[in-house]
Amino acid sequence: MRKYHWLLIAAVLTLGTAHADEGMWTFDNFPSATVAQKYGARIDQAWLDHVRLAIVRLSNCTASFVSPNGLILTNHHCAEECLADNSTSEHSLVETGFLAANGGEEKKCGTQIADVLVEMQDVTASVNAATRGQDAKSANEVRKRTLTRLEQECEDASAKAASGPLKCESVDLYEGGQYFLYKYKRYDDVRLVFAPEVGIAAFGGDPDNFQFPRYCLDMSVLRAYENGKPARTPNFLRMNFNGPKAGELVFVAGHPGNTDRELTLAELKAQRNFVIPTWLLRRSEQRGRFLEFADQGESNQRITVAPLNSLENGIKVRRKQLDALHDDALLARKADEQSALMARVAADPALKAELGDPYGDIARAEIVKGQIWLPYTYLERGVGFESQLFDYARTLVRGAAERAKPNDQRLREYTDAALPRIEQQLGAPVPIYPQLERMTMTQGLERMREWLGPDDPVVHRVLSKESPQALVQRLLAGSKLADPAVRLALWKGGAAAIEASTDPMIQLAKSVDPDARAIRTRYEDEVEGPEQLGSERIAKARFAIYGTNVYPDATFTLRLNFGTVQGWMENGKPVEPFTKLATAFTRQTGADPFRMPDTWTKPRAKLDMATSFDFSTNNDIVGGNSGSPGINAAGEIVGLLFDGNIHSISGSYWFDTEKNRAVAVDTTIIREALTKVYPAEALYRELGGG
Amino acid sequence: MRKYHWLLIAAVLTLGTAHADEGMWTFDNFPSATVAQKYGARIDQAWLDHVRLAIVRLSNCTASFVSPNGLILTNHHCAEECLADNSTSEHSLVETGFLAANGGEEKKCGTQIADVLVEMQDVTASVNAATRGQDAKSANEVRKRTLTRLEQECEDASAKAASGPLKCESVDLYEGGQYFLYKYKRYDDVRLVFAPEVGIAAFGGDPDNFQFPRYCLDMSVLRAYENGKPARTPNFLRMNFNGPKAGELVFVAGHPGNTDRELTLAELKAQRNFVIPTWLLRRSEQRGRFLEFADQGESNQRITVAPLNSLENGIKVRRKQLDALHDDALLARKADEQSALMARVAADPALKAELGDPYGDIARAEIVKGQIWLPYTYLERGVGFESQLFDYARTLVRGAAERAKPNDQRLREYTDAALPRIEQQLGAPVPIYPQLERMTMTQGLERMREWLGPDDPVVHRVLSKESPQALVQRLLAGSKLADPAVRLALWKGGAAAIEASTDPMIQLAKSVDPDARAIRTRYEDEVEGPEQLGSERIAKARFAIYGTNVYPDATFTLRLNFGTVQGWMENGKPVEPFTKLATAFTRQTGADPFRMPDTWTKPRAKLDMATSFDFSTNNDIVGGNSGSPGINAAGEIVGLLFDGNIHSISGSYWFDTEKNRAVAVDTTIIREALTKVYPAEALYRELGGG
Repeated sequence: MRKYHWLLIAAVLTLGTAHADEGMWTFDNFPSATVAQKYGARIDQAWLDHVRLAIVRLSNCTASFVSPNGLILTNHHCAEECLADNSTSEHSLVETGFLAANGGEEKKCGTQIADVLVEMQDVTASVNAATRGQDAKSANEVRKRTLTRLEQECEDASAKAASGPLKCESVDLYEGGQYFLYKYKRYDDVRLVFAPEVGIAAFGGDPDNFQFPRYCLDMSVLRAYENGKPARTPNFLRMNFNGPKAGELVFVAGHPGNTDRELTLAELKAQRNFVIPTWLLRRSEQRGRFLEFADQGESNQRITVAPLNSLENGIKVRRKQLDALHDDALLARKADEQSALMARVAADPALKAELGDPYGDIARAEIVKGQIWLPYTYLERGVGFESQLFDYARTLVRGAAERAKPNDQRLREYTDAALPRIEQQLGAPVPIYPQLERMTMTQGLERMREWLGPDDPVVHRVLSKESPQALVQRLLAGSKLADPAVRLALWKGGAAAIEASTDPMIQLAKSVDPDARAIRTRYEDEVEGPEQLGSERIAKARFAIYGTNVYPDATFTLRLNFGTVQGWMENGKPVEPFTKLATAFTRQTGADPFRMPDTWTKPRAKLDMATSFDFSTNNDIVGGNSGSPGINAAGEIVGLLFDGNIHSISGSYWFDTEKNRAVAVDTTIIREALTKVYPAEALYRELGGG
Repeated sequence: MRKYHWLLIAAVLTLGTAHADEGMWTFDNFPSATVAQKYGARIDQAWLDHVRLAIVRLSNCTASFVSPNGLILTNHHCAEECLADNSTSEHSLVETGFLAANGGEEKKCGTQIADVLVEMQDVTASVNAATRGQDAKSANEVRKRTLTRLEQECEDASAKAASGPLKCESVDLYEGGQYFLYKYKRYDDVRLVFAPEVGIAAFGGDPDNFQFPRYCLDMSVLRAYENGKPARTPNFLRMNFNGPKAGELVFVAGHPGNTDRELTLAELKAQRNFVIPTWLLRRSEQRGRFLEFADQGESNQRITVAPLNSLENGIKVRRKQLDALHDDALLARKADEQSALMARVAADPALKAELGDPYGDIARAEIVKGQIWLPYTYLERGVGFESQLFDYARTLVRGAAERAKPNDQRLREYTDAALPRIEQQLGAPVPIYPQLERMTMTQGLERMREWLGPDDPVVHRVLSKESPQALVQRLLAGSKLADPAVRLALWKGGAAAIEASTDPMIQLAKSVDPDARAIRTRYEDEVEGPEQLGSERIAKARFAIYGTNVYPDATFTLRLNFGTVQGWMENGKPVEPFTKLATAFTRQTGADPFRMPDTWTKPRAKLDMATSFDFSTNNDIVGGNSGSPGINAAGEIVGLLFDGNIHSISGSYWFDTEKNRAVAVDTTIIREALTKVYPAEALYRELGGG
């Protein structure tokens, strides 16, 4: 089946990059006919089902089963939190890597989960029936209640079924054009099997992030457990350790987190004018604090590696998103699209009467969004109190209040379906570093005072006569919430326990909760409601006029796309799609983040320097796709997606055919690593190697 | 003469705020007739000359002579650098304040100057004659050479004159519509007489900055010296310690630093899209580093107070400027203005033929600006090496190279006219804190590597195999440039000394200089040249069509404006124009930056709590106006400008009649401070009090 490669290369050379392989398709609407026509590959339902059932959704990433015994392949950066949670300020698994000598040594990832999508059910009709004729505010409330009810019914039904309990999550596709229930089998016992050192997993660090050529072994191996034993996972993907060829067709299945390609012009301007800038300013300051802190000693450095990686990645993404939004041509195209659609709608009086002025409704909502964005983020989204302990406190305070209500009248994140996951997170024995809590929370309070103003009533009440520093010191000294047992006791104690608690962090969370809820209600009623109702109507217009042969924006739900291994032209020069191990060695400087670990420099002589390291493809991916397998037409893994090039970041808003490229670890370097660098023969064999 | 006040209040109540007192007028084009008509105040040439000769331009601020013996009144934050330069990490004058017991105790401000504008000469015709018919690139070069020559001739002539040597600086008004030579008498021996503690000078700190109501004694007193003795300054302004009344007419004379009200749409978009965002991201990160550093101990805190004040002020300004630029209405108005002007031009074929398409030319230049902005800022503007020591090194390296050239062929900052000031700065014994140098330079190198990319040739050469941290450590350990004697020796040694120097900072500056010069040349030829030629033509169109009864953008040159003491409406509620001492005491929390110094809390009982503290006016001011006197129609000082309200920041782009307000220290609180808080009776008497 792989002989089509050579034809394919010829085809690519002929077609150039003019034909976009754009699209993050749902598994129920994958354009197999296009793939067959363009690439001669036959993607049938069996292929789709097999791949779907082998793909894993982690809490933050994608992964895939790669053995019948629950073995999971994903990126190093997807397991970084698990590595950090199993570290101390003296010894960091992020830094040293980890290889379990046997099953008993595999380390629990306290807050990780692994979900497999077993069924998709279209519930659009039920949701639309419930909201029909309502205004934006009540439609928003009714929609949420309906989705909660549907989820609950689904979970209740599955609990009684022979196939066992499922997690049922409602999914909004096409910005309200479709509503689905996605049903997952969930593994909540996930353990760490293998991870290389961050020095090779993220070689080049932040400077090289989103760059290509690239030299990262951004991989890790986890294992799903059930009842304390490795899970049976008969649907798994086979590794092909020969990697792909240039021009080869590659499928990427995974969970792209978020795209905004269908946002309206007004929503994009809100992103550009305040959503992204305020985020970037906050995070840049936090980066400065963390970097200065890290500079003060090795143990400081150790505990900041993981949060800094995440922070710096986010900064780079949003910085380039902002650049994309400053492209006048992009916004002009968006305005034209909107006008064209509404002109078509206007030609159909019945449709026009039904849809009204959705773009205008959304534009008006964005004005309110701008007015309340700062209090909404600082109070409700917790930016003003940013810390792990405050998050726990808010969860406990709100959880106690919400659980006392009927399921469909709670805040959506506290429905019965959500509770087991909350309890898992509250009970996980993850390390809390008071120094990091101090930095993030002090900044939160200082910036809240600056941005909302020292005379804002909440600011005034929270700080009273204290400085942010003094308040944080008092909270950290007095709070016991770093102890999982304390958290679980408060959780299980419910409203009475919260009422009786003298924990200062609980008291803070209680004291600001009315204000936070009030601004949230305003946001939901005046921003989210009109946005959702408007975008439902726009989706309806699009389906009516352009049909359904389109893909929805990414929503961290399962998608499949296709593309080929290829580079691109940068400033008139070709960027080749493969990198080689030899170049990684010439690129190293001996200083972080360009220092290769000793595990690599010592066996250097016996390594095959011609091994392909990373490669680029034109698959349409975005954050959340991290850890996705790159699959050939035979359904084998030939690469492990971990990044995009710098041009891929504009993929949030549009797909740049010429330059948007995904970046993957080649399976050949994985073989080289597992067989010659790390003492990982057993793992290699379990992956089907040798 | 003051009896018109009461009439005036009536007038204001009648007129409301509908009539803008907008405008930063040059002294040769002040609208005295408007003032006479609107306020009944007679501003004649004698008044204007007297005020002009009493106003002082500091290196960073405005000030005024307030006694015949060289006494200078300005803001605390204008003297903060002098206070910091006379401090150590053990004892900070910023923190403790300072009062010279006698003349001998007055402390030298090593890098401060005091300039008085004695003459303005219009040289537009000479400049236009020199550049006529040239393309943008050569016009830019010829213009600079011409200005250098005019300055030199002016200084040479004044050196021979009986009235003594003058500093001659060319001035660009109306974005190239007029060129002037401004001639200053310069005092380069400026000393510190009095400053209160930063705790009361900047009470409320960054949270209250640009806010009103306000309670800041943002004042300091300096003295100009000549030949080691207090300067004779017969043109000085008298203090009126009774402060102004609500509605009273107030004139503000000073040096507003920069406004961009005449920028084109394309230039404003460049500001919005990359100039301001890149600045804000850098500075927010630096703020985070400094704050975390300051949190690590009292001595750390002490040395970061002054740089942090400046940093946080800048962040707030640019953050609000960015908000202003996200106002679509502002940009639409700008687009309309441009279209209207060009429509009028098109109606005059001769004018059209002469002016071409200046907006298009500038728009094309802005595209290039966007392409080269990062290397231009990182390499040429020194952002990649940010540190005091690198600045010295670059000045020494470039100064040696430039001084070898004929005066009119040098970079403009190294002409003969500029050399004495450079030498003053190189020789000033200001403290260099290696910890601050480490933070700023490490960040510069790290961000340069991130933003230009690790494979950028300069980045690659500079860092080679070193990490930014290691390089900075080596530079700081090896460089001797913190010693003024070393710097002066290298300066005096010229090219040979630079060639022979083994100082690593000098070597770094040498190694990057060709790259920095190359990108500067590109910037000057392809951005600055077309911008200047385009804006000269736009100015010509404006003068031709709208006449000359307009004011030019601020350029840190002397301006005069008028307004009245008034508050504004905020969210439908009036903000009163005066604050009272009593409220400062109720506002204090005991924690910085809301802690009043002990000097104030101890004598609290004997202070008059009804004393006016700060007040607001609708004068049109901007940064650089700090330290400007608020002058009544009698020419007396009734207030000391130190800030604007939050709405004043949009004043960079347009004057918001409804909400833009200036903020000043009332002279009544100055009296209270000098007579009851500080043992400053002698100073009070020298200021004409008592």
